Amino acid sequence: MRAARFYAPGDVRIDEIPEPTPKNGQVKIKIGWTGICGSDLHAYLAGIEGGTMPDQKTPHPVTGETLPIVLGHEFSGTIVELGSQVDSKRLAVGQQVCVEPLISCMKSTCGPCSSGTRNICPHASFLGIAGWGGGLSEYIAADQQLVFPLPADLPLEVGAMIEPLAVAWHAVKRSGFTPGSKCLIMGSGPIGLMVLKVLKARGASWIGVSEPSIQRRQMAAEHAADAVFDPRSVDVVAETRKVTHDEGADFVFDCAGIQASLDLAIHAVRPRGTIMNIALWGEKAHIDFMEVLMKEIFITGILGYDRCHEELLEAVAAGKFQGLEKLITRKIGLEDLVEKGIKALITEKDTQIKILVHP
Amino acid sequence: MRAARFYAPGDVRIDEIPEPTPKNGQVKIKIGWTGICGSDLHAYLAGIEGGTMPDQKTPHPVTGETLPIVLGHEFSGTIVELGSQVDSKRLAVGQQVCVEPLISCMKSTCGPCSSGTRNICPHASFLGIAGWGGGLSEYIAADQQLVFPLPADLPLEVGAMIEPLAVAWHAVKRSGFTPGSKCLIMGSGPIGLMVLKVLKARGASWIGVSEPSIQRRQMAAEHAADAVFDPRSVDVVAETRKVTHDEGADFVFDCAGIQASLDLAIHAVRPRGTIMNIALWGEKAHIDFMEVLMKEIFITGILGYDRCHEELLEAVAAGKFQGLEKLITRKIGLEDLVEKGIKALITEKDTQIKILVHP
Repeated sequence: MRAARFYAPGDVRIDEIPEPTPKNGQVKIKIGWTGICGSDLHAYLAGIEGGTMPDQKTPHPVTGETLPIVLGHEFSGTIVELGSQVDSKRLAVGQQVCVEPLISCMKSTCGPCSSGTRNICPHASFLGIAGWGGGLSEYIAADQQLVFPLPADLPLEVGAMIEPLAVAWHAVKRSGFTPGSKCLIMGSGPIGLMVLKVLKARGASWIGVSEPSIQRRQMAAEHAADAVFDPRSVDVVAETRKVTHDEGADFVFDCAGIQASLDLAIHAVRPRGTIMNIALWGEKAHIDFMEVLMKEIFITGILGYDRCHEELLEAVAAGKFQGLEKLITRKIGLEDLVEKGIKALITEKDTQIKILVHP
Repeated sequence: MRAARFYAPGDVRIDEIPEPTPKNGQVKIKIGWTGICGSDLHAYLAGIEGGTMPDQKTPHPVTGETLPIVLGHEFSGTIVELGSQVDSKRLAVGQQVCVEPLISCMKSTCGPCSSGTRNICPHASFLGIAGWGGGLSEYIAADQQLVFPLPADLPLEVGAMIEPLAVAWHAVKRSGFTPGSKCLIMGSGPIGLMVLKVLKARGASWIGVSEPSIQRRQMAAEHAADAVFDPRSVDVVAETRKVTHDEGADFVFDCAGIQASLDLAIHAVRPRGTIMNIALWGEKAHIDFMEVLMKEIFITGILGYDRCHEELLEAVAAGKFQGLEKLITRKIGLEDLVEKGIKALITEKDTQIKILVHP
């Protein structure tokens, strides 16, 4: 089968590799659509640090694989084969599914893995980053507990966006968000827009978006942000105070991960409010702790998700999300992955949200 | 009466000023003992920034006072006079009391003040810092709702330490601490030791203390820390992991407020653990957000307290705190405030914890 494999920064090849065979408890999935994630772009440009991706010599501690690895962790598909000991009441051949692509050590001695928070296992990573196959190939074999049936009538294209939506769902959940809260989002790239969709679905009473790009601001407005601000020309803090009884936002979701967004977040969040960080940072941040303690604010961050796909899919099935398909800005074939996919996320970053690949 | 008044950094004078007269709803207190706080030291050295202290020209927005102001916010005393409309069932002449010296705007339009979190009012400050008198004088008139009767038999000397103990109580409460948690304290100066006392009282199952000074480590050990570490020679993170199933501390209380302590805290806290910052920072901190999000930790901080004196005094009366008097390392008269008090906190910082002044 064909698969896009990552060898090194700048070196992604479309290879011919053997089809996977489902092991005990696994299902084989024919991939429908796979989204390109910012972390795929990051890997292409510079590799992924922090132990989540193996290199060419050191195997990943959980998968045991070295580079090259198959890319792609945002995917949907159709089950074509069940391995032995798969729960046939839950999963069946022909079923459309998405996958929670989380990898962790699962050792009984690992605190996070044994307490149901696998994403913060010290060895946590993802299918399509650390090995065990990925979505940018024709087939994958995945453990049945990671595989979730899509709601009836949900297009496979939208199914491929459940994974990034789960990141946003997890972030909103971990922030302590309660319905009726007033929220500010820093940055409306793909994750910022996903957070916007989740906050709408969960009942935020006001959502402001701060974003320098006019195209991205337009997209945030189309996805029903209550207000969009250009932080280069508008006083975002003052505007946020206007709609929050001069207090500030209950929650600020930082999806930009740069010093300017963090500084704005600290000033725009209300006393005892929460700043939730979802972005990957390229460098260290500076924080004035006097501001943190004078307002007694909370600063936190999340990585991925853990077992929230089920409740998210229930919310999707219940119609809580509208217009997810509008986040898809391009569909391409596997052969165009680098030129029309990965590179387009750099050259057309203001207009491309989710590029889907059909392997 | 005699009062220690702050004119400018390095300029604290013992002045003769009029005795206060209790207004409507106030009581007049003859000061018993007043502790010298790190912030008094900070004011003496450099003044207090952040709008909490007035200057010589700009009045504080709540008290309307300019410098000089009477110093001292950690104090106990005996009620000598009741103003009109004081609840005589609660307060009486001859009663020994302590004071919650919080100042805030109390406007109905102020979110924090109207929602019961006065300490994070944008204009929050303290008696003895922003005006309305202070504990480093013979008498003070204070609003009755800020005045709390001391438990029977509690020495006035210990009563003077209820205020800094309330800071620690508030920090532990706001951290989300639960009994049985394993905690690490960075720095065992006065506030670090207060946090140690509160964690003991609230039922922490393990308390480690990281502190470079051998004398301060000894004091932490005397106040029943389970382990004390010299961060210059011991791997505090590894030692903490040993007693926490290789996970890290549930809570880290940063009472040092320097980059090295924050770095250690981030590495020593467990995944999804909380770092509570209580120290005043002199400069901006650097944070690697990738570490925050890979572990999904919470970072927060507190300022002062708000209406926790009552529950703290109940815990004191119930015998939850032992050996508070051992935190008193010197007692002096008002005339010795600068030389044997404030300056001793600099020159003898490793051995002086709480210096009490008898005005």
